[in-house]
Amino acid sequence: MNTAIAKILEALRQNDISAEEAEKRIISFYHGDLGFADIDLRRQARTAYPEVVYCAGKTLEQSLSIMKKMREHNLPVFATRASKELAEQAAAVFGEAVYHELSGTLSIGELYAEDGREGLVVVAAAGTSDLRAAWEAARTAEFFGSNVRMINDIGVAGIHRLFNRLDEIRAARAIVACAGMEGALASVIAGLVSVPVIALPTSVGYGASFGGLSALLGMLTSCAPGISVVNIDNGFGAGYQANLINRVKSNAV
Amino acid sequence: MNTAIAKILEALRQNDISAEEAEKRIISFYHGDLGFADIDLRRQARTAYPEVVYCAGKTLEQSLSIMKKMREHNLPVFATRASKELAEQAAAVFGEAVYHELSGTLSIGELYAEDGREGLVVVAAAGTSDLRAAWEAARTAEFFGSNVRMINDIGVAGIHRLFNRLDEIRAARAIVACAGMEGALASVIAGLVSVPVIALPTSVGYGASFGGLSALLGMLTSCAPGISVVNIDNGFGAGYQANLINRVKSNAV
Amino acid sequence: MNTAIAKILEALRQNDISAEEAEKRIISFYHGDLGFADIDLRRQARTAYPEVVYCAGKTLEQSLSIMKKMREHNLPVFATRASKELAEQAAAVFGEAVYHELSGTLSIGELYAEDGREGLVVVAAAGTSDLRAAWEAARTAEFFGSNVRMINDIGVAGIHRLFNRLDEIRAARAIVACAGMEGALASVIAGLVSVPVIALPTSVGYGASFGGLSALLGMLTSCAPGISVVNIDNGFGAGYQANLINRVKSNAV
Amino acid sequence: MNTAIAKILEALRQNDISAEEAEKRIISFYHGDLGFADIDLRRQARTAYPEVVYCAGKTLEQSLSIMKKMREHNLPVFATRASKELAEQAAAVFGEAVYHELSGTLSIGELYAEDGREGLVVVAAAGTSDLRAAWEAARTAEFFGSNVRMINDIGVAGIHRLFNRLDEIRAARAIVACAGMEGALASVIAGLVSVPVIALPTSVGYGASFGGLSALLGMLTSCAPGISVVNIDNGFGAGYQANLINRVKSNAV
Amino acid sequence: MNTAIAKILEALRQNDISAEEAEKRIISFYHGDLGFADIDLRRQARTAYPEVVYCAGKTLEQSLSIMKKMREHNLPVFATRASKELAEQAAAVFGEAVYHELSGTLSIGELYAEDGREGLVVVAAAGTSDLRAAWEAARTAEFFGSNVRMINDIGVAGIHRLFNRLDEIRAARAIVACAGMEGALASVIAGLVSVPVIALPTSVGYGASFGGLSALLGMLTSCAPGISVVNIDNGFGAGYQANLINRVKSNAV
Amino acid sequence: MNTAIAKILEALRQNDISAEEAEKRIISFYHGDLGFADIDLRRQARTAYPEVVYCAGKTLEQSLSIMKKMREHNLPVFATRASKELAEQAAAVFGEAVYHELSGTLSIGELYAEDGREGLVVVAAAGTSDLRAAWEAARTAEFFGSNVRMINDIGVAGIHRLFNRLDEIRAARAIVACAGMEGALASVIAGLVSVPVIALPTSVGYGASFGGLSALLGMLTSCAPGISVVNIDNGFGAGYQANLINRVKSNAV
Amino acid sequence: MNTAIAKILEALRQNDISAEEAEKRIISFYHGDLGFADIDLRRQARTAYPEVVYCAGKTLEQSLSIMKKMREHNLPVFATRASKELAEQAAAVFGEAVYHELSGTLSIGELYAEDGREGLVVVAAAGTSDLRAAWEAARTAEFFGSNVRMINDIGVAGIHRLFNRLDEIRAARAIVACAGMEGALASVIAGLVSVPVIALPTSVGYGASFGGLSALLGMLTSCAPGISVVNIDNGFGAGYQANLINRVKSNAV
Amino acid sequence: MNTAIAKILEALRQNDISAEEAEKRIISFYHGDLGFADIDLRRQARTAYPEVVYCAGKTLEQSLSIMKKMREHNLPVFATRASKELAEQAAAVFGEAVYHELSGTLSIGELYAEDGREGLVVVAAAGTSDLRAAWEAARTAEFFGSNVRMINDIGVAGIHRLFNRLDEIRAARAIVACAGMEGALASVIAGLVSVPVIALPTSVGYGASFGGLSALLGMLTSCAPGISVVNIDNGFGAGYQANLINRVKSNAV
Repeated sequence: MNTAIAKILEALRQNDISAEEAEKRIISFYHGDLGFADIDLRRQARTAYPEVVYCAGKTLEQSLSIMKKMREHNLPVFATRASKELAEQAAAVFGEAVYHELSGTLSIGELYAEDGREGLVVVAAAGTSDLRAAWEAARTAEFFGSNVRMINDIGVAGIHRLFNRLDEIRAARAIVACAGMEGALASVIAGLVSVPVIALPTSVGYGASFGGLSALLGMLTSCAPGISVVNIDNGFGAGYQANLINRVKSNAV
Repeated sequence: MNTAIAKILEALRQNDISAEEAEKRIISFYHGDLGFADIDLRRQARTAYPEVVYCAGKTLEQSLSIMKKMREHNLPVFATRASKELAEQAAAVFGEAVYHELSGTLSIGELYAEDGREGLVVVAAAGTSDLRAAWEAARTAEFFGSNVRMINDIGVAGIHRLFNRLDEIRAARAIVACAGMEGALASVIAGLVSVPVIALPTSVGYGASFGGLSALLGMLTSCAPGISVVNIDNGFGAGYQANLINRVKSNAV
Repeated sequence: MNTAIAKILEALRQNDISAEEAEKRIISFYHGDLGFADIDLRRQARTAYPEVVYCAGKTLEQSLSIMKKMREHNLPVFATRASKELAEQAAAVFGEAVYHELSGTLSIGELYAEDGREGLVVVAAAGTSDLRAAWEAARTAEFFGSNVRMINDIGVAGIHRLFNRLDEIRAARAIVACAGMEGALASVIAGLVSVPVIALPTSVGYGASFGGLSALLGMLTSCAPGISVVNIDNGFGAGYQANLINRVKSNAV
Repeated sequence: MNTAIAKILEALRQNDISAEEAEKRIISFYHGDLGFADIDLRRQARTAYPEVVYCAGKTLEQSLSIMKKMREHNLPVFATRASKELAEQAAAVFGEAVYHELSGTLSIGELYAEDGREGLVVVAAAGTSDLRAAWEAARTAEFFGSNVRMINDIGVAGIHRLFNRLDEIRAARAIVACAGMEGALASVIAGLVSVPVIALPTSVGYGASFGGLSALLGMLTSCAPGISVVNIDNGFGAGYQANLINRVKSNAV
Repeated sequence: MNTAIAKILEALRQNDISAEEAEKRIISFYHGDLGFADIDLRRQARTAYPEVVYCAGKTLEQSLSIMKKMREHNLPVFATRASKELAEQAAAVFGEAVYHELSGTLSIGELYAEDGREGLVVVAAAGTSDLRAAWEAARTAEFFGSNVRMINDIGVAGIHRLFNRLDEIRAARAIVACAGMEGALASVIAGLVSVPVIALPTSVGYGASFGGLSALLGMLTSCAPGISVVNIDNGFGAGYQANLINRVKSNAV
Repeated sequence: MNTAIAKILEALRQNDISAEEAEKRIISFYHGDLGFADIDLRRQARTAYPEVVYCAGKTLEQSLSIMKKMREHNLPVFATRASKELAEQAAAVFGEAVYHELSGTLSIGELYAEDGREGLVVVAAAGTSDLRAAWEAARTAEFFGSNVRMINDIGVAGIHRLFNRLDEIRAARAIVACAGMEGALASVIAGLVSVPVIALPTSVGYGASFGGLSALLGMLTSCAPGISVVNIDNGFGAGYQANLINRVKSNAV
Repeated sequence: MNTAIAKILEALRQNDISAEEAEKRIISFYHGDLGFADIDLRRQARTAYPEVVYCAGKTLEQSLSIMKKMREHNLPVFATRASKELAEQAAAVFGEAVYHELSGTLSIGELYAEDGREGLVVVAAAGTSDLRAAWEAARTAEFFGSNVRMINDIGVAGIHRLFNRLDEIRAARAIVACAGMEGALASVIAGLVSVPVIALPTSVGYGASFGGLSALLGMLTSCAPGISVVNIDNGFGAGYQANLINRVKSNAV
Repeated sequence: MNTAIAKILEALRQNDISAEEAEKRIISFYHGDLGFADIDLRRQARTAYPEVVYCAGKTLEQSLSIMKKMREHNLPVFATRASKELAEQAAAVFGEAVYHELSGTLSIGELYAEDGREGLVVVAAAGTSDLRAAWEAARTAEFFGSNVRMINDIGVAGIHRLFNRLDEIRAARAIVACAGMEGALASVIAGLVSVPVIALPTSVGYGASFGGLSALLGMLTSCAPGISVVNIDNGFGAGYQANLINRVKSNAV
């Protein structure tokens, strides 16, 4: 039974509020219960996680004003595709902004302090050129509450490198496999572990890579079970999903 | 320190085995440790899950002989894209075969008895035509150890239907969102829950659906975080991944 | 019976004009009746709407000289994809130019004064990045005779935002649903209203968005009836069509 | 003010109902107001139009049982992609079924009697091979309340044929332009009329037609304003949208 | 009988040349007969037309040195995709260079003097943005020996404009129909004439134009016979082919 | 001056006809002049060529009834994609039907008797599998008035075969180059001749041929000038265009 | 110096042959030297290998008559995509036909007896469904002179299986890596060997495999050097190329 | 028998090393034998070839530091896609750097001195614009141990040029055929030689070349056997593979 509505009704029955007021509160509440409320105030309460600021295609002003509004409500800010210039302005305004240039991620305040993080997410990257996406995933998973280990340069062309790191990989509760070109890293890892692999295709490559299409198709059609895929270069989406998996029992009702 | 190798070396030092024998055992062991072993005997021990039989593109004889070999090693069998004819022959040979015609899944023996299953996976399907893929996901997740609830006919064209089932959906630790055409179901669900959504695009549709491409692209580019995607019509992959997520703490080392 | 031709024939019979002159006039008229006439003078008379100036791929000089020619014939000018520089030059030349920078639309003179507009077109945009296209649609519909309301930031990832604005949306006689990425906004709206929805896909997104292809395909294959689609980023086309719908009884013969 | 909720609250205040009952009624009502109700009973009330039965990918039994349920609630049935066999069974069950074989449309009961239809929708088809889609559009528009005129064989390769029918075309309040191959018919018509054109690409053609892709792209990129497009071969969608346009003032609140 | 070889053999028999010399001449001749010769010297003799210089992707130096080599052999030069800078340098070097900036074509010397041209090629362009490609076609056809008439701004969205110019169009022996977006101009023209139409798709458009793909597919799948198509933006190819057609009897053996 | 209109006007002036009659005749004539007339009777007069019957997607009855109508007006019939069954029925009805099974072409009556044909069209096919399309081209060109020579099995993998036939190829006024797979035949031929080459891509091939796409793209992007392309497998279009070219001076006004 | 021509010239000088005869012989010879000769008789002499018969798209009669012609000239026959029915007829005609049903290859006579084969080609296949293409490759390489070893079921999802066979793979001078779906096998193998890998993508898979496109793109964009790729399902091409590589020093001049 | 392991075991048995040391050496060795070792030190020993530095997407610093590490271990460096700026810095650091600007290749030290190279690789390029890719192939093959001859400007549009160079081409043990646009060069060459052809498609072209797709598809679907294909513009891959082929017997065990 929905106790918030019950309280409104009780107030009505006791004539503390008018029928009009009761109707208005019920409608307002109902929207809230479905999430019909102001983003900034309610999303974190509703889904455990606050809104994320995607800075691409926004002006510096737009990005900063969203951040300000969130900070006014004491919400921690996590922003992706943030430019160095934005980071500098944010630092000037908020003081505490933490910027990670390679991945273009910016955080102001913390959702989870370091000791509040749990489990382990491994982000495995095929090569140096995949690092922007990989670090976006790593930073995202960390912000939203996971311990994260980055393992780089384990592309399948020299598969021994992957085997050398296998124990570290197997320690994870969720793995992000990040690769461009043919994207075979996801298939090989998924064949060696028993936890979910989030495949993160990157646009690294040229010619028949077609901007990441080859990696994307390869990951979608992998012969190994235990893989699901996010959009090309979507490090945020991969890290967010890996964190959800890592914390699935903590978050689930 | 690797105690298995230590034991071999100790046996060698005590002359219980020859150097040749020691070398052979070491090599064999090493392969085993990486998973270098016979599939049927070792995969379940290695990844907690036995091999799955994908029947499409195999003759009845090929499928049956793989099943027989697995049963000889006391492994439970789970087969996908199984025809009714194969199911009948399997029933004749193994007696205990359980066939689910709509999804084309066939199981012989159980990996988890009903009371060994844990958590909840919800499989949400947009419409009747998506049910083959959806049920393949549901049956897979159940075989590999999840309680499963199927929720059908909640496509976004009449979004009230989805809201009517929201409590049931929110009870899950992992959700499979199965839809063809524009595949918007995944976006809408992911905006309303705080657990991972596995998007399962189907080839339902015609014209610009291009065999499921529209749903696939839509799911990959979703504006909602918390979604990862499997191949078109790959109910098995979706169910397998959802189960891995649901059981992630149980399975993880 | 075609009275214009009748008049020519009468003039001929009365020897007011020669047979050669009559033939020439008939040919000339006939072309006119099919629209065989100078664009600037006849299009507005023929289809109720004057030519629109699409500035992309034209030089400043070309755009300005078309505008001048139209103004000489007392036609109101509506231009799309106009740069700020063009707007400034137009203001210098015509004085009365109204420029809307975000959408790149420029108008000189009015086709409909504010009180001549009728009905209501709602332009619903999923997010901030979709606003260029959305405002192009809004400005177009307004110029061609509709009252317009813009509703922004109601993407399906937080579907409560859309419900909060539902009454406003339902007040329209035609709705433009503008979204990038998976473009699910069109499906969700169409399931909730009973007027035509013009789906306007945008190139917002990256990776598998393929420049707006994902939104386009999603909108074309929507599971909801009552949707038709315009080209990617074609705000003008969407606003023009929405206005035609809104005014369909006023315009139709 | 929402009087239905007011009534519930009044009943509560007068102790005619308990607080629990009031809460339940409010929740139930609210869902209904958004459309949260049983499809069959509520959709027609909500959007003016009942559910349509899309028979492709459904068994005869599935299609028939949906039809039965709708008839039990006195709803008129409109079904698309219906086979002749289904039509015969429907005729046996419902008696009054009207089947149009070329378009595969089947109706049982009427939404609008002939004299309740209004306005005019013209369905213009380029050639004989486009007639399945064109007639699906025509039958749909008629069922949902429009007078419809079909004009066939006016493809642009012999453009005089289109001009011969121009007066008939111009009498419409909405036009469906149906063509395969290069789909140029939509552009040419839209340049000659001042009402909305719904472009309906068909899969007619071979080679570089790529199953209707050439017509679809051509229609989306038309140089003429006043066109919006539906999915390839989606006659139902085109006819439904044309009818919505034709009746826009009658339907709009 | 091949008289050139006969002459060599005769010279051998008369001991005017040695056997080695005879063999060398025969080999050399044979290559020549197949076209095995220096490009600059032989192509014009072989196919009636000299090599054309495609300047895109060549440095100014490379382009100029090819031109110099051709001029040394008294060959007229025709160059496409030539920059203004190249034109200026060519003018400095060769004096007589004629540059057409809009189309980026440059000629040095003449293949045909004006009174040597024959027949008529019409180049019909849909709109202003198509003019670069259209003028490249026009200039090419003229250089290689055709009289050319350019007709602009006759896109099908206002089809009366095309009819106004129909007599001029029908005077041609070959027509280039140049259009972007949906490219319908080619279909409409081909339905009205009885000479070959060379369809020249341009990359004009955005979104679903996909860089000219929509026009290309539309022209390839045209419902009108008498059309063949060249590559997107390939004005040179269209003009060259139109000229070959116009002069087919003059050139053919 | 348009003498037909002059005659009508003269008849009016002399009161032989009424003004109403004159107006009606003028309108009717004008339509005719633009081609506004019945297809069967006027097309041959207008463009020198009668309508062609494309039998794919038409029932036997539809095809036969079109043929009958044409024969009643003494028009010769040329039909493509005709089945053997249709050919047999046509033979029964018309007696004189000539069927070419490999190409699926059927003719009834002649447009040009053998001695009325002129010039030479060569149809060059890469291999046996290309023959359906190639013969469709050959039969079309012949019906519409060209002498035709078919040269088969000269694919570029054994380029000597092409050189062996070079003299025959060079005798043509227009050449159809018909090939699937990579379609290189068109490039090689165009480099060796000085008449127009119509490239006819076929769907011969598998895998990355993508139903003829590889040949189509290859032909469109050929490095040789003097090529234009028709749709995949469109033998009719290629033969029709080659004939137009071959007869360009005879047909042109 | 070309001695064959020298001999002809010498014969001429000594009047053993006429000038006409000499010219004819020279032309004939020259064609032959470039390969200008009858396929059946000359190809084997020219390139060391006879023509291969590709039976798809040929009638039984066509295939058999080509085989007969080759046998008359004592050429061994190798045919691909041969049906069982063709094999039976070939056996009836030629007696010695050897048919391999799984791969659809048929040979009559031998190009190399078993002891004439040299080196080793390994054909590595990812799974059972890839065997048709893999065996086509194996049989082709064997016919054209290589010893061949087939290694199956070593897909990367269980990479230990590949390592178990690594010594066998490394013994090859050329390796065919045959896989569908994501095709990662080629990358992994190429990272472990130092001989050329011919990647053979297959159409095995569904959904986003797009008929082998995912494997094709993955192989083309492999991060490992030492890979080149053939067409989807083109086992013949892969085996032929692997054999050329294996025998490169034996064949090269 | 694996003698390295045997030696370790012998050392253990003789108590020269402890069991812990033996285990560590065995594990270390085993990794090495599979390639489980540091890239820089072991790859050359393992596959005969050192790592190659792909500079695109790496900073100058990253590229230089990889080069330094390799030079510290006395490994020769070969780098592709190197900018002029990188080359200058490398020259400053290493002194001996050899830069080839057109191809963007940079080498420091030699893998094979000139007299250590063997065989012949021919790189055949269709035109000037293909030279970047072609020279990348040539420089790669040379660095890794082949004699290389570059043959340019032999595109099929003037096929005599190819025949003029045929003897030179036929002298190779492996051929790289490099072309953009329709890529027909590979087919024509493969039909004239008996050694493997590596087809190297380039992105040269515009419009329907789609960034090299037309050449890629053409080469994959070639009608000539003996062709395998690398990624678009992947000169390195083509040269590497051609060198492997050329040296196949030298490298193979």
